[in-house]
Parts: sequence; structure tokens; C-alpha cells
Amino acid sequence: MSQFEQVTVIKEANIYYEGKVTSRTVLLPDGSKVTLGIMMPGSYEFGTDQHETMEILSGQLSVQLPGTEEWLHIDGQSAFEVPANTRFKLEIKTVTDYCCSYS
Amino acid sequence: MSQFEQVTVIKEANIYYEGKVTSRTVLLPDGSKVTLGIMMPGSYEFGTDQHETMEILSGQLSVQLPGTEEWLHIDGQSAFEVPANTRFKLEIKTVTDYCCSYS
Repeated sequence: MSQFEQVTVIKEANIYYEGKVTSRTVLLPDGSKVTLGIMMPGSYEFGTDQHETMEILSGQLSVQLPGTEEWLHIDGQSAFEVPANTRFKLEIKTVTDYCCSYS
Repeated sequence: MSQFEQVTVIKEANIYYEGKVTSRTVLLPDGSKVTLGIMMPGSYEFGTDQHETMEILSGQLSVQLPGTEEWLHIDGQSAFEVPANTRFKLEIKTVTDYCCSYS
């Protein structure tokens, strides 16, 4: 799906890590939400409240999922899942465009 | 207005200046569009095809509008207009969140 239709977009950005990670919140007609974001090169750690599906639209990065020592390398379109109430680490190599869904 | 309702959001980001300026395109019910974007600190120059209204949601920056030598200093919520088919310069001091309308 290349676009979201019949949605509500929150005007103000969500800003993390001094703007190196930013996103916009999109509320879908079914009551769920997604965030559309950009990550600049750098190292980040995030915690989850809900289960997250991170769809990478473009970019080169590595992710360390909760409970693993290994780093998953991603180059371009891909996706990974992060359980609720966990933490995960990201090493962003090139500007990364993403869409995060919550469930 | 803190949110846009009944809109279409293009999933992929618009990426400029190696990701230091990014935005998402939002299509409004009346057929017009806005872009919601983030500018990281740096110096940028942009050209306009249409008349643009740049609403600054947060951030510190200076703008040099077309045909002027002066720099307009902005700190936080503000707005400026840029005529169609012109060029303008920006000096972004801190992470800047904006909403650009076209007419």
C-alpha cells in the first residue's frame, strides 16, 4: 500500500534524539495507528508499549531485537517485529524511511 | 488546527539534502495538499513551483525571502509566504518542524 486513505494526521511531529529520529502519527479508520518516520544515521534504543511492526521503506540499518545478541542487517525494503514491553537497538547506516504499526 | 482529518497520506517520505530535510505529503479533501516536514540544522535553498505558506510549528531558523537581502529570524510558531517560481534560503539553527501549504 503506497498511501493511507481516510485518515487523520497529527500535525506536530514526534521528535526523539534531538531530531535524529522523527515521525508523524496517522490514525487509521479502524482505530489503529501508524507512525511514518525518518531516522538519521546513529545509534538508538527504543522501548515498546505495544507490539510493533517496523516496515523499512528505504535505508541501510542493523537491528538488535529483544533477547538476542545478533544484529539483523537490513538494506532497503524489509520488516521486523518487536514484542510489547521490550527494548530494541538500532544502528542506522543511511537515512532510513519507515512505517511503524502497533497492535 | 492540530490535526488533518479525512485525508490521504503518501507513505514514502520526500527526502532532500541527504535526509536533513524530509517531509510527508498529505492530500486534503478539497484537492489541495500540504507537506509536514522536519529540517535539521544546516543551510538550504529551495525553489517554489507554487505559492507556499510555510507554517513553523517549532524551531529556530532564519529565512531569506526572494528579492530581499535581509534575514527574517524565527523562534517557534510563525509563518511566512513564498511566491511561486522563486527561490528562498533557510538557515536552520535547531530542529524545525513545519507545515507547508501550496496555492
